[in-house]
Amino acid sequence: MTFTTQALNKPRWLSLYAPVANEMLATEEVLRSELQSEDPYVDQLVKHAFRLGGKRLRPALLLLAAKAAGKVTREHIVLAAVVEMIHTATLVHDDVLDEATIRRHGETINARNDNEASVLVGDFLFTHAFSLAASLETTFACQTIGRSTNIVCAGELRQIHSRGNYSLSEGEYLSIIDGKTAELCACCCRLGAHYADSSATIEDAFDRYGRHLGLAFQIADDLLDLVGEESQAGKSLGSDLKKQKPTLPLIQLLATCSEVEQHEILALCHREGSEARHALAARMERSGAVEYAHHRAQEHAAQALAELRAVPDSGAKGVLAELTRLVVTRRE
Amino acid sequence: MTFTTQALNKPRWLSLYAPVANEMLATEEVLRSELQSEDPYVDQLVKHAFRLGGKRLRPALLLLAAKAAGKVTREHIVLAAVVEMIHTATLVHDDVLDEATIRRHGETINARNDNEASVLVGDFLFTHAFSLAASLETTFACQTIGRSTNIVCAGELRQIHSRGNYSLSEGEYLSIIDGKTAELCACCCRLGAHYADSSATIEDAFDRYGRHLGLAFQIADDLLDLVGEESQAGKSLGSDLKKQKPTLPLIQLLATCSEVEQHEILALCHREGSEARHALAARMERSGAVEYAHHRAQEHAAQALAELRAVPDSGAKGVLAELTRLVVTRRE
Repeated sequence: MTFTTQALNKPRWLSLYAPVANEMLATEEVLRSELQSEDPYVDQLVKHAFRLGGKRLRPALLLLAAKAAGKVTREHIVLAAVVEMIHTATLVHDDVLDEATIRRHGETINARNDNEASVLVGDFLFTHAFSLAASLETTFACQTIGRSTNIVCAGELRQIHSRGNYSLSEGEYLSIIDGKTAELCACCCRLGAHYADSSATIEDAFDRYGRHLGLAFQIADDLLDLVGEESQAGKSLGSDLKKQKPTLPLIQLLATCSEVEQHEILALCHREGSEARHALAARMERSGAVEYAHHRAQEHAAQALAELRAVPDSGAKGVLAELTRLVVTRRE
Repeated sequence: MTFTTQALNKPRWLSLYAPVANEMLATEEVLRSELQSEDPYVDQLVKHAFRLGGKRLRPALLLLAAKAAGKVTREHIVLAAVVEMIHTATLVHDDVLDEATIRRHGETINARNDNEASVLVGDFLFTHAFSLAASLETTFACQTIGRSTNIVCAGELRQIHSRGNYSLSEGEYLSIIDGKTAELCACCCRLGAHYADSSATIEDAFDRYGRHLGLAFQIADDLLDLVGEESQAGKSLGSDLKKQKPTLPLIQLLATCSEVEQHEILALCHREGSEARHALAARMERSGAVEYAHHRAQEHAAQALAELRAVPDSGAKGVLAELTRLVVTRRE
């Protein structure tokens, strides 16, 4: 059993990353060697966090942006490992937060151990990521990653605060997911372009590409949580409803229905279980709220694609375009 | 009501920092301006975490080391704010961990809000600290702080793992507190000396000074938790017993008593409440385990003082020496 094959457990996604396949493997090797600990308990916890490994979307974005912008360097490999550590840290902390019992088809650390270990494993990964980013020659990566992860945390805090606020506007929702999801995608693409010695114009275009991709991804992800199939998604759905977290289809449904319907919908929101979720999903389908959210995701995907026009054609650019289409049509 | 006066609420400690009083105030100003957030919810949570502010030992160590080593620069002020953010982040996460209800005479964030917000506020402070450290010219601070905070997390994880392990040796205990406490003190002193352009020899001496000080501090802190008075300490005591966390006096007691006594002691360890704590404290006093732990703390304090011999005499050096004596005699 090797770390690498365990971690890369989403073959449908990973086959996409062909233009940077070797670099993805080199990234896995950095993760493996960096995250060894002399203490067997620490070692086991950290390895477990990574064995849950998923789509490796963030390192892929960074490496594909690098390749599309020019060339992949040793710095990119290190930074690809850094962003995956950070993403994994947020997932581990999210499991403390969300009390999700199924994620990425595996047990959560939280279920295996307790909240305390999960908090510290997340902190261990965060600090290790920063330490590794600081091994590069300049402070650029530390600055960029420090700022972006701070924005991610603020976005997640604002999302907690939005719980139970069913009058959340679409603008507020977008601003929250811009922080909690799109910011790190933008950061990955910027780092990819920057360390490939891109011009400031290209670097900014990649940042905006990553941001729109992240927005499209999160809107689609939230849609999946409301109307997806658990067997396909590989994780428990309906968690946003359970946490009273209004997302775009619900915001749209509430914004366009009658007052009587609003009361019925809010009553469904406060009811537990898959029956209420299916009833809500049916209403969202009927009213066009699902289509609306899907359309908004597609718009951001189109804006992401538009940003790629500034980039010369290449295999890597083609994959970035393909990824953009995939995030809005995916079922897992 | 200003942030500064609220935060600096341990006047007995703070009067000690006289040689760097202005720099301590400048550090508070950096903390205040850096930790403002446009989002009122985020702003309130972060300010609350800092309003619990305590002894400001870590910024003081950094600034006093800087002054004793030569001069305090703008970089030191920034880094003093950074280490206090990191320390506060670990305290906030510790409140998730420890479920302590009284800390530093104030409510914990955890009691006011929930675990989720506490995890994210800690992350917000961690990432902000790294972002601020990255604003300096070189990667030295990011590297040093990244590595040290990673060691802190590993130490805390090992401590969790040691729970209920009443055969923990003194060596294992010292190795754990070396990671979870002494490492960050060593880091502060090293940064102070480094940015005052000290020689490598002096920088290393300050690192060792901080480490021994941290060990002395933690042994004394653990002793206080077992045999101190809650009214003087300003926080709930006995939490180590409650968490089945063996510390030095208990380790020494178990190592030196008869097998029959061991059974009695372990039975007391598993009983809740202040009565069991007082019975254990009495046994530790009688057996000499309290004196032993106190003596070990004093030994580390003496080793810390010995490291200061390499440093020219100054007011700041005098305070570092005074602090060293204070950490092993304090009751709060």
